[in-house]
Amino acid sequence: MKNLVSMKDLSVEQILAILKQAQAFREGAVSTLKNKYTMANLFFEPSTRTKMSFEMAERKLQLEVLPFDAGFSSTLKGETLYDTVKVLESIGLDALVIRHEQNNYFNELVGKVRPAIINGGDGTGNHPTQSLLDIFTIWQEFGGLKDKIVTIVGDIAHSRVARSNADALTRLGAKIHFVCPREWQAEFETTNSFDDVIEVSDVLMMLRVQHERHDGSISFSKEEYHQSYGLTLERESRMKEGSIIMHPAPFNRDVEIANELVECERSRIFKQMENGVYIRMAVIEMILKGRE
Amino acid sequence: MKNLVSMKDLSVEQILAILKQAQAFREGAVSTLKNKYTMANLFFEPSTRTKMSFEMAERKLQLEVLPFDAGFSSTLKGETLYDTVKVLESIGLDALVIRHEQNNYFNELVGKVRPAIINGGDGTGNHPTQSLLDIFTIWQEFGGLKDKIVTIVGDIAHSRVARSNADALTRLGAKIHFVCPREWQAEFETTNSFDDVIEVSDVLMMLRVQHERHDGSISFSKEEYHQSYGLTLERESRMKEGSIIMHPAPFNRDVEIANELVECERSRIFKQMENGVYIRMAVIEMILKGRE
Amino acid sequence: MKNLVSMKDLSVEQILAILKQAQAFREGAVSTLKNKYTMANLFFEPSTRTKMSFEMAERKLQLEVLPFDAGFSSTLKGETLYDTVKVLESIGLDALVIRHEQNNYFNELVGKVRPAIINGGDGTGNHPTQSLLDIFTIWQEFGGLKDKIVTIVGDIAHSRVARSNADALTRLGAKIHFVCPREWQAEFETTNSFDDVIEVSDVLMMLRVQHERHDGSISFSKEEYHQSYGLTLERESRMKEGSIIMHPAPFNRDVEIANELVECERSRIFKQMENGVYIRMAVIEMILKGRE
Repeated sequence: MKNLVSMKDLSVEQILAILKQAQAFREGAVSTLKNKYTMANLFFEPSTRTKMSFEMAERKLQLEVLPFDAGFSSTLKGETLYDTVKVLESIGLDALVIRHEQNNYFNELVGKVRPAIINGGDGTGNHPTQSLLDIFTIWQEFGGLKDKIVTIVGDIAHSRVARSNADALTRLGAKIHFVCPREWQAEFETTNSFDDVIEVSDVLMMLRVQHERHDGSISFSKEEYHQSYGLTLERESRMKEGSIIMHPAPFNRDVEIANELVECERSRIFKQMENGVYIRMAVIEMILKGRE
Repeated sequence: MKNLVSMKDLSVEQILAILKQAQAFREGAVSTLKNKYTMANLFFEPSTRTKMSFEMAERKLQLEVLPFDAGFSSTLKGETLYDTVKVLESIGLDALVIRHEQNNYFNELVGKVRPAIINGGDGTGNHPTQSLLDIFTIWQEFGGLKDKIVTIVGDIAHSRVARSNADALTRLGAKIHFVCPREWQAEFETTNSFDDVIEVSDVLMMLRVQHERHDGSISFSKEEYHQSYGLTLERESRMKEGSIIMHPAPFNRDVEIANELVECERSRIFKQMENGVYIRMAVIEMILKGRE
Repeated sequence: MKNLVSMKDLSVEQILAILKQAQAFREGAVSTLKNKYTMANLFFEPSTRTKMSFEMAERKLQLEVLPFDAGFSSTLKGETLYDTVKVLESIGLDALVIRHEQNNYFNELVGKVRPAIINGGDGTGNHPTQSLLDIFTIWQEFGGLKDKIVTIVGDIAHSRVARSNADALTRLGAKIHFVCPREWQAEFETTNSFDDVIEVSDVLMMLRVQHERHDGSISFSKEEYHQSYGLTLERESRMKEGSIIMHPAPFNRDVEIANELVECERSRIFKQMENGVYIRMAVIEMILKGRE
């Protein structure tokens, strides 16, 4: 593994190797990298959790991390992403985490630049470390993915997570249901009826209503969304024993999930964030080792 | 001490312990923390000196510091402060310095989240490390606070410093006078006449005219303010022997203080900033030790 | 050397000493600084390569680097540069890299503050580390500067690089030609005819068309500029054997240089950026040693 831009790059064996290494880091394993590496995190879109999670993972691996301020960089002078990355290559960076609003931005980079590219999210496309931390959280909970029923609820069309997760979860043996309003259907088969699948799901993965990506095209209010597609207290009461609630966050309380459920017993929302640090440590270490 | 949000949290004994530890750090003592801790500085309002001072203190304590860019975080997507802090808790942060425009923002955090909360300033409320560094500077100068006459001059109503200092200085035995224009009177007893108190004061603590918090409600010009409430050369000439000038900065030269007096012999303005680093080292170390 | 604000500060001997130390760092030498120093990079104008290059150099020297966010600092509250630097002095910083839009901003700092001032670019004035890395790149290529013909092409009037380079290259024995449109002539003797000098030049140094500094006063289109003053494929074909192409970047592809030439065999554009890290290491180390 020389880069990580999409879940499609990863075989089932590689995914399982990442999960095992993440678990080892979670239990206290330390980095076995032999050299001193320098990274930077290029976030061209706002982010708290993904950026901070990478920052933490990099420091736990004892890497040098250079600050990069996208809002104050030469991209303001019209420099292309390729040229910016070439600059960072020249300066000596070994790996770059990039979040960018353009789908598949990495196609102009991978194979053309020396630093490893780790995709921190591209437009509405991929977000592989988020998928991996979701998979890790389910794997920890049930000891595996085989035959687990995962229901993904919400804005399928605009969600990086849904797309990155769909393929990988299936390859690992899980069964996926998608629930979403008619307006947000994607290329997957979806249902509009949340209530049909609640009682059979092992995992309810609630997606964020991304107000900032919509343009007044939504025909329902927050309250209506909550009633039709949100995880209400009533719906939670019908979830099956041992089933869990996930959300990639940031969440809108009382829109996709009832306020009281964010930190309820079934919720793994904050555990997902914990897991993100270990998954990112595993991914970065494997990529840097693959280059040693 | 598990958090520090207000001077009211601190007993006189605790304040004195912080001053002594700050003095030890000033004289070259090094951190005796046993574990490796990670912090972040969440500044939701612009700041140079407080943020840089905390950054320096954290590095002198050999802590890991994760960068947090409030202007580029998920708060832009409407995430609440509580949820942001829960994210940082999940990612593994041990302590957070927070500056936020909302008074008492910390009430929704302390006791509800795992990371230590250190208040770097809340709205017009508290700024405890500023109060402590002010107290430290007076304590160094006079060997104690007892019976020292401290005159605080300026925008009492909008000043975090005045409020944080008022109570603590009194508890430590100092006598406080407040001088301010009628428009800016607060809940304390104040006088409008600066000249009545100049000659008796051991400390003149000049406050910043916070243009950015006012809304055209001020009835005087900069020149008028300087004449009535500023520290002019003439007023400085009437200060008593051994008395000192303080200012929390940033200062407006020739508004609250004459340009020539900023670095004059009586001025402790830059020494206050030096002291801020040691005070913050002491506070952070005590809080992290209180959690070991 | 206690500060570095302009190439005029440096004797020929000092320049050569910096080049030799940069070469040593390039070949793997490590810092021989005895103390622990703390720096900050104050960039009041957007920058990727200069800022990241300094950040990398500082870390390779094992310095502590405090983050400074100019867009979120007290300068927003109207604090002067002098007062900001005095704050950073009080907090304990040993050296500051500053980029500022005001020409000769450093005149209000050097000799008046304790931290070393390293100029990262002032308005349209100086950019000494850029000049040094340009000189270093030519020196590496030809083993010296004597009698080398260096042609600088473009926006001479607005370029820091042209001004910083002009004097130093001449003192080192190089011959300089300037080519620029009539609108952009500066105090140097220039020619409007690029084609007269192409075949004799050892170095073509193309400057950036700084759209963001112009105000509609330019009378030519990008295409016209490229045809008259850009390095086209045709012009490159007439360059003499062993001659090289340089550009301080960020470059406008197909304006000052044909897209295909940016990474061509003659191009040293990305090597300049590599060299920048080593030059900055040499400069910072010499300045900090000069203060030990």
